[in-house]
Amino acid sequence: MNSLTTLVEARFDPHYHNKYATLMAAGNGALGIRATHEEAYTTQTRGMFFAGLYHRAGEGETTELVNLPDLVGMEIELNGDIFSLLSGEILSYRRELSFASGELARIVEWRSPHGQRFTLKSERFVSDTRPGLFCLRLAITPHDGPATVRVATGIDATQTNSGRQHLAERELRVFENSYLQARYRTLDNVSDVTLGCACRVSPQAQVSFSAKNRRLLQHSQQTLAKGECFTLEKCAWVSASPDAPDDNAAAAALATLRECATLGYDALMAESSAARRLWWRQARVEVESDCRQDQQALDFALYHLRAMTPRHDERSSIAAKGLTGEGYKGHVFWDTEVFLLPFHLHTAPAVARQLLRYRWLNLAGARRKAARGGWQGALFPWESARSGEEETPEFAAINIRTGLRQKVASALAEHHLVADIAWAVAAYWQATGDDAFMAQEGRELLEETARFWLSRTRDVNGRLELHDVIGPDEYTEHVNNNAYTSYLAHHNVALAQGVRRRLGVPDDAFTAQCDDFLARLYLPGARADGVIPQDDTFFSKPTIDLTRYRASAGSQSVLLDYSRAEVNEMQILKQADVVMLLYMLPWRFDNATAAANLDYYEPRTIHDSSLSKAIHGIVAARCGRRDEAYRFWRAGCDIDLGDAPHSSDDGIHAAATGAIWLGAVQGFAGISVKAAELHVTPSLPPQWRRLAFPFCWQGRQLHLVITHDALTVSSDHAVRLFINDTAVDINGERTFSLSDSPCREAT
Amino acid sequence: MNSLTTLVEARFDPHYHNKYATLMAAGNGALGIRATHEEAYTTQTRGMFFAGLYHRAGEGETTELVNLPDLVGMEIELNGDIFSLLSGEILSYRRELSFASGELARIVEWRSPHGQRFTLKSERFVSDTRPGLFCLRLAITPHDGPATVRVATGIDATQTNSGRQHLAERELRVFENSYLQARYRTLDNVSDVTLGCACRVSPQAQVSFSAKNRRLLQHSQQTLAKGECFTLEKCAWVSASPDAPDDNAAAAALATLRECATLGYDALMAESSAARRLWWRQARVEVESDCRQDQQALDFALYHLRAMTPRHDERSSIAAKGLTGEGYKGHVFWDTEVFLLPFHLHTAPAVARQLLRYRWLNLAGARRKAARGGWQGALFPWESARSGEEETPEFAAINIRTGLRQKVASALAEHHLVADIAWAVAAYWQATGDDAFMAQEGRELLEETARFWLSRTRDVNGRLELHDVIGPDEYTEHVNNNAYTSYLAHHNVALAQGVRRRLGVPDDAFTAQCDDFLARLYLPGARADGVIPQDDTFFSKPTIDLTRYRASAGSQSVLLDYSRAEVNEMQILKQADVVMLLYMLPWRFDNATAAANLDYYEPRTIHDSSLSKAIHGIVAARCGRRDEAYRFWRAGCDIDLGDAPHSSDDGIHAAATGAIWLGAVQGFAGISVKAAELHVTPSLPPQWRRLAFPFCWQGRQLHLVITHDALTVSSDHAVRLFINDTAVDINGERTFSLSDSPCREAT
Repeated sequence: MNSLTTLVEARFDPHYHNKYATLMAAGNGALGIRATHEEAYTTQTRGMFFAGLYHRAGEGETTELVNLPDLVGMEIELNGDIFSLLSGEILSYRRELSFASGELARIVEWRSPHGQRFTLKSERFVSDTRPGLFCLRLAITPHDGPATVRVATGIDATQTNSGRQHLAERELRVFENSYLQARYRTLDNVSDVTLGCACRVSPQAQVSFSAKNRRLLQHSQQTLAKGECFTLEKCAWVSASPDAPDDNAAAAALATLRECATLGYDALMAESSAARRLWWRQARVEVESDCRQDQQALDFALYHLRAMTPRHDERSSIAAKGLTGEGYKGHVFWDTEVFLLPFHLHTAPAVARQLLRYRWLNLAGARRKAARGGWQGALFPWESARSGEEETPEFAAINIRTGLRQKVASALAEHHLVADIAWAVAAYWQATGDDAFMAQEGRELLEETARFWLSRTRDVNGRLELHDVIGPDEYTEHVNNNAYTSYLAHHNVALAQGVRRRLGVPDDAFTAQCDDFLARLYLPGARADGVIPQDDTFFSKPTIDLTRYRASAGSQSVLLDYSRAEVNEMQILKQADVVMLLYMLPWRFDNATAAANLDYYEPRTIHDSSLSKAIHGIVAARCGRRDEAYRFWRAGCDIDLGDAPHSSDDGIHAAATGAIWLGAVQGFAGISVKAAELHVTPSLPPQWRRLAFPFCWQGRQLHLVITHDALTVSSDHAVRLFINDTAVDINGERTFSLSDSPCREAT
Repeated sequence: MNSLTTLVEARFDPHYHNKYATLMAAGNGALGIRATHEEAYTTQTRGMFFAGLYHRAGEGETTELVNLPDLVGMEIELNGDIFSLLSGEILSYRRELSFASGELARIVEWRSPHGQRFTLKSERFVSDTRPGLFCLRLAITPHDGPATVRVATGIDATQTNSGRQHLAERELRVFENSYLQARYRTLDNVSDVTLGCACRVSPQAQVSFSAKNRRLLQHSQQTLAKGECFTLEKCAWVSASPDAPDDNAAAAALATLRECATLGYDALMAESSAARRLWWRQARVEVESDCRQDQQALDFALYHLRAMTPRHDERSSIAAKGLTGEGYKGHVFWDTEVFLLPFHLHTAPAVARQLLRYRWLNLAGARRKAARGGWQGALFPWESARSGEEETPEFAAINIRTGLRQKVASALAEHHLVADIAWAVAAYWQATGDDAFMAQEGRELLEETARFWLSRTRDVNGRLELHDVIGPDEYTEHVNNNAYTSYLAHHNVALAQGVRRRLGVPDDAFTAQCDDFLARLYLPGARADGVIPQDDTFFSKPTIDLTRYRASAGSQSVLLDYSRAEVNEMQILKQADVVMLLYMLPWRFDNATAAANLDYYEPRTIHDSSLSKAIHGIVAARCGRRDEAYRFWRAGCDIDLGDAPHSSDDGIHAAATGAIWLGAVQGFAGISVKAAELHVTPSLPPQWRRLAFPFCWQGRQLHLVITHDALTVSSDHAVRLFINDTAVDINGERTFSLSDSPCREAT
């Protein structure tokens, strides 16, 4: 394995504070911490999140992932000057996140407003092995004579979610003149959080403590000779009991903190780093490309895919912004099943199983939501948190015409996620053959979701139609017979029918209903030119010139010129539903159809959704359009890694990181599953020379290496796969030439 | 009247952000706004408060004055550079608060990090005539070529009280592309707040609106030629209904805002300024002094005395920090009756009446608190908000020995405030002769407070003692027979007895109890050296060297070295109870006793209470120790106006501003009331040449002018007063020589 890349911030620029706080965030699936600077800036938003710890701040508010009391902040005073990179002079600056170790380091040379030079170095990480552990180390060296250094840091509970406070202070303590501990309870009295930290400084430093205005701080002060170094090593432990208060947690948390603090930064870092190294071996995608950033984008994506996934807790799933920001309030969308689950399914299938169990455990809420709408089965919430209830906020932005805030319609009609979850259940079963899962969780999920669709139809002159739905394209609301929704619903019901028959469940009224549904559901067919209508009315709507809006894709700038209602009445796509459909059910459409729909819909698509470009890229790759595919893939990488200063302020685009992996593996390596067969149809872009990655399939650990000419596959057990549609059996390692058709083993 | 002084901040220094935000705060008794800069700094705490609008953020929290959504903040971007005085270069800086008009103006010349020069000028005020009105005007001029100016401002509800959020967002609206309105409700669903603002910019500016993350903003952008000026005039209206939700308030608030915005900054400023001018004529204290700052201190004090006093609402009283900060959570202490009420009593007696009615309206809570303790009558809460219930927080700072936070004992045993309120009732009656008040509110307050003391005693071998109390000196807790408490309790019961007899109420069991109490209550007498014991055990405690702690008076630094329990067992005073007693009941003690007690207690006093030095000064003045009195008075002025950067971070020391007036009027002018007679015994410090002020007494409007040689008194109606103990009658203007004894009219 080549050495992993890093992410470097070479310049201090307040416009980019929140972007880098997101991109360089640390996390282990349980705990996520934004990469804000130790010193405060008004332009930076701090953030620390514990997976599953949600709370609603009051009536009319939305349940959100709690932004926890801050552990990162440090008030640093150097000879009386408040340390801030806005003042004085920056002599050098570099911040670097190591994807290999997960360590973030910053080194700054600074001339204070009084003209004295200092070097400040900080390092930090969230442990990959200990779920609540965060360590931070600060070193300060004066270069122009003696200096008095003051640092105040601890636990700062003035932190809010954009002004919404979720936690009441329960107890603040300082144990043994060393260990700060703060206990909080959510205002609804349901969840407890305990934060503890120890800040080790040299024995020469004077230390005192304060507890005021929700800040529990250690104040350390030391006078240094020129060249002497002040160091502060902060070891912090965060624990939470999201489902019930726990008054006994404090003692255990203190014991754990004491143990960690005794081990110290270096030992804890080594332990965490070793665990990460092992994981990278199971997951890393290596690429040789003309473009240096491609490997970085893949490393970045996988780093975040690991950081965002709550492997420790099946009652949590992956939030749309992971654990990196307040965006989308920490809610779980269909993004998880469609964009994120495949990565886990093929690198650590148990994680994929857990993500599906999250939905299964929340079936009760989904049944309630269906019943509220007058339907049967399970209608999962459009936005989900811990309770499984619908969490979509009521209002979005202000309507520029009326001055009123606009209602969010997704929770009412964006029902495709029901079928998306079923799609993921099937994908899991095909990839793992986990019959035990399918017999319990899988079957129940497929049946309950199918039951929803059976009840959701309307009989129109003998055919069943799906009315008043919203597809993934949220710029087209409340339409009938949306192609994406209908095809996926059909797939969902077919899956339920299929699994029952395979499990030998006798036919009954439900089976009969499924047969009827599958026979009579209206699936919009292609026109003569191959283009499938997105819905019943789409073709009849006018088009406008989208050049300007496409140039600022992702910004939703079209909504500054048109109201949502106006956008709805034009051929303007946030993302293209039919392209998404081609991606999801590739075996239903031939390449000519795919190409025709790409050509029709892409120019009408603004790509204002971060889910859009990457999927276009994969469909393009499958059509053999390698340049176009690569362009889209790169654009997908730029959603977070591009130059736009504020695109990631609220957190990482979790689905987009998943799509970076999907693009490489499903797009360029051309991996797909058809009728339970694993197909590999490589389509490397001209810029790439080599693509290599591990891949789990039905209990086998495969490894694939793809060049323009050859494909090398190794497997730890016998496995059959289809390379460019030719069946090959592998046990050990085999290399195939890709120049021939059908493919042949290279010599 | 000489022209009023101003307060100037000549230098930008982040260490002083919160001090000046407090000192220069604007207010009209209803609305108070901290003088934070338009641009954000991490070191500055914004604050806007509406008198009477309290809320408790959750279980275990303390009721506090809500820090409202911010109206001051502006994100300013100049040619892409975020405007901050920490970056770029400050070419000139000046901020000035006019005490006459209440207008705060800042003018800054700034060189941006890109090297371009700009002038930024801002002006603002809170209206003296319209309770919810705040106006702010910003002007920006580029000097080095064209520039694009972006300003985002509006209503920012991310503001919290140090992380505690009290308000849920109810509705955000933009009316007529001009008027932003945001409605909030406290989380307990009891109170509503509506904020509205209009931000007028030139027609050349582009304007848009956003509502995200609790910020409702107008974004204005304009490209200026060199020398051209961008102006933004923000007119804001704040209204609150503290006692019940009010869904109809929004329309009225919008109408009021529209009316104000139509009038515009200049007209509204002129109107407010005219009202202030009138008020200054009724209240101003003029001084000719060797020390320039003395007049400024007096103007400063009176400016804040007006800003902090909720004249519009008798359900509110004056908070310990006025409306200038979160300190003491906006609670009302005995400070109001003892330190603040006298100023109002002698400049606007109706305000003093209202402050007493606040207590009377809260008698129910005081009765409940007494009953909870097993007593009778009324025990007012040590800290009071709107409900009249006890609001003292449970915990204070962390104990350095145990790591535990220390309980606040004041609510349990600091009972003297009961007698302090009675003392103020009597002062009001004497100064106004308001028999109607005395027949209802006054009598009930005096009887109910007396009833408390009757039940509070313990019979010790035939004498009545007051055990387990805390006097004003909070460094000595849970003592028996505290001199201050016992003498004041005696005064309280005597007042109740006296008013009943004067009102002709027949004697009954209560009267008999009063007689018994007055006869048998133990009042600690002076030792042979004249020193009165602060309590039963004080003289037996050891002393330590307090030099270091006295040098940093006000910082409570002694508590960094000793626990409260240890301080309690030494002769260490936060403020001297016996000196306070001498101040309160001067007619009970002769000058020799006063001097003996000053000499004994002062060296044992750290003056860690802001209430301490000023009172020592007044007692010293009454003893004829003019130098000492002046030294203490100046030290009292420096509590807020001195150089200490953080002394006023949490808000103004309201009582200290009252004490600046008290020092001049009761100390140096020597005004006191003995047996309902008004005495004037001037004791001008050598540094002062002339002291002049208006004074209300029994419906007469007096004006006094004092020099070292003479006293000129004018009165609009016939009045008798005692100058250096000589009775004189005045109707019109008379001048007396102070060189003679008894005083004689000057010729």
